[in-house]
Amino acid sequence: MPTDSNTQIRLASRPSGWVEAENFQVTEEAIGKPADGEVLVRNIFMSVDPYMRGRMNDVKSYIPPFQVGEVLQAGVVGQVVESRFDGIAEGDFVMGMLGWENYSVSDGRLLRKIPAGPVPLSYHLGILGMPGMTAYVGLIKIAEAKAGDNVFVTAASGAVGSVVGQLAKIHGCRVAGSAGSDEKVASLTEEFGYDVAFNYKTSASLADSVREACPEGVDVLFENVGGEILEAVLWNMRDYGRIALCGMIADYNLEEPQPGPRGMMLIVGRRLRLQGFIVTDHPEACEEYVRKAIAWIQEGKLTYRESISEGVENAPRAFIDLLKGRNTGKQIVQLSDAS
Amino acid sequence: MPTDSNTQIRLASRPSGWVEAENFQVTEEAIGKPADGEVLVRNIFMSVDPYMRGRMNDVKSYIPPFQVGEVLQAGVVGQVVESRFDGIAEGDFVMGMLGWENYSVSDGRLLRKIPAGPVPLSYHLGILGMPGMTAYVGLIKIAEAKAGDNVFVTAASGAVGSVVGQLAKIHGCRVAGSAGSDEKVASLTEEFGYDVAFNYKTSASLADSVREACPEGVDVLFENVGGEILEAVLWNMRDYGRIALCGMIADYNLEEPQPGPRGMMLIVGRRLRLQGFIVTDHPEACEEYVRKAIAWIQEGKLTYRESISEGVENAPRAFIDLLKGRNTGKQIVQLSDAS
Repeated sequence: MPTDSNTQIRLASRPSGWVEAENFQVTEEAIGKPADGEVLVRNIFMSVDPYMRGRMNDVKSYIPPFQVGEVLQAGVVGQVVESRFDGIAEGDFVMGMLGWENYSVSDGRLLRKIPAGPVPLSYHLGILGMPGMTAYVGLIKIAEAKAGDNVFVTAASGAVGSVVGQLAKIHGCRVAGSAGSDEKVASLTEEFGYDVAFNYKTSASLADSVREACPEGVDVLFENVGGEILEAVLWNMRDYGRIALCGMIADYNLEEPQPGPRGMMLIVGRRLRLQGFIVTDHPEACEEYVRKAIAWIQEGKLTYRESISEGVENAPRAFIDLLKGRNTGKQIVQLSDAS
Repeated sequence: MPTDSNTQIRLASRPSGWVEAENFQVTEEAIGKPADGEVLVRNIFMSVDPYMRGRMNDVKSYIPPFQVGEVLQAGVVGQVVESRFDGIAEGDFVMGMLGWENYSVSDGRLLRKIPAGPVPLSYHLGILGMPGMTAYVGLIKIAEAKAGDNVFVTAASGAVGSVVGQLAKIHGCRVAGSAGSDEKVASLTEEFGYDVAFNYKTSASLADSVREACPEGVDVLFENVGGEILEAVLWNMRDYGRIALCGMIADYNLEEPQPGPRGMMLIVGRRLRLQGFIVTDHPEACEEYVRKAIAWIQEGKLTYRESISEGVENAPRAFIDLLKGRNTGKQIVQLSDAS
């Protein structure tokens, strides 16, 4: 139920390097009133994601940068409190790019209604949302993984990587991955269907670790990290290998862009293809995925893990921890009760 | 006409770094005799190409390394002196991977007959051979250049690059390129159809030079060089740009692989595709090209320049000069008279 006050998180200053608590500001405002065509939403779950780090820089990219002093934005699932938009009614569950805040007013056209079932509401921010869609588009549409392929996934226990592994198994691939703690590595083989996994932080040689994990070489790399691990996998790619470049989390917090992998010559000799992609360019594949994924979840073929922090005031900490690799699975912040 | 002696060039030692004259050995042997199924060829033209540098290293690649003490191999056009292979007769013109020598004996199955016209015989080693086919496959099949695209070509005055520029114009693109001398740069706009070109050796900032050459950005990069120029073009790529990775001449003479370009993150944000390729993987596209290219040459749409050195004993020098960028257009060594 609405109270009079809306707690909000704003960008206080642009980080240089790692994000710090001081880059955020907590403010209180009166809850907004929807104008014609607008909707007031009580925010229930919000997503924090690595791509947000890029938006904190004042750099033109595929989405505009966050502005200093403004409320930060995130993917949010919420419930409608008051609607002045045809087709959305009080009590509907919706999702959209809303604020890091307890209540948001949004143009109704920018909201998407979601069903209250058959899976938990928060899943629409994760396995059924951008991370799951990203896994599917990258693995199946960009890298064109097919049965029998040797697939390698970096940041394999993350929101995207944990879905990639399972999708690879569903599609008949062999799948290996790397993650940054023994606990995460264990989750890969125990929960997320990986055939083999290793901890890149304790590897003496990343190239050797990749070779041991994939003795036949790598046909498909799903790359979330970049930097040294990208180079290590590159040296282990098989002829005609495909690399889906999804993210470069290793680069997000660097002030200067780092050199790319050594061995670019291998891309020629082994006829490799590297392709960057943004999931929102592929709406049809996303719809195809959501349809299939609900079935896979209900059949138990697709497992999902969330880390849920409580309260909007803890969103900055959840985001900072995410960037430092302290979470497993999809990082969610719960802002109010789900019902 | 055969004499009794066959002059041959052998690999005396593996170069480390730049190739030197001492890495080659000149030997004399009796002219070989074809056995059943074999053909004796009087070699007329041979090709020297940057990829041969890779074969001088003892490294597994898409073609096996040259062996120390053995006669070096090259693409050769010659005339049949004696044939013991059905379907090839004395007097036929053939091409194949033969030796750096005046006469070669070859398995007849590895030779391809070529017509005596309508274009000069040596063209089959260049504009109608691997370099021309490479230009076509990379630009049209790998990078999918289409009318209106902004195309950038590195090593633009080389055997491949000088064809890429012309093919880009034939297909309705705008095309810019870089080369390593003012004379080469002049040839790009005056002979090879480039809209604009610059000398990378005298550029104060490669990224600025690329931006000035392509103010709208680059849709297609045909990359022969790698290293700094690849990085400079990467920063100027437009969304959904395609990079055909044909070669990395900047890396061939380095003992250690160098880091890749800074700004790999751009590949994600701008949804770029980088693809390595080897022309021999694309035989249908090559046939399609030769058919079209003969017509374009006869219509004057496709111009060609060769540098021809005389005599097999000068082949090492021609190859060394090629690697140092001292030639313009396709480097050929003439071994005997064309008729």
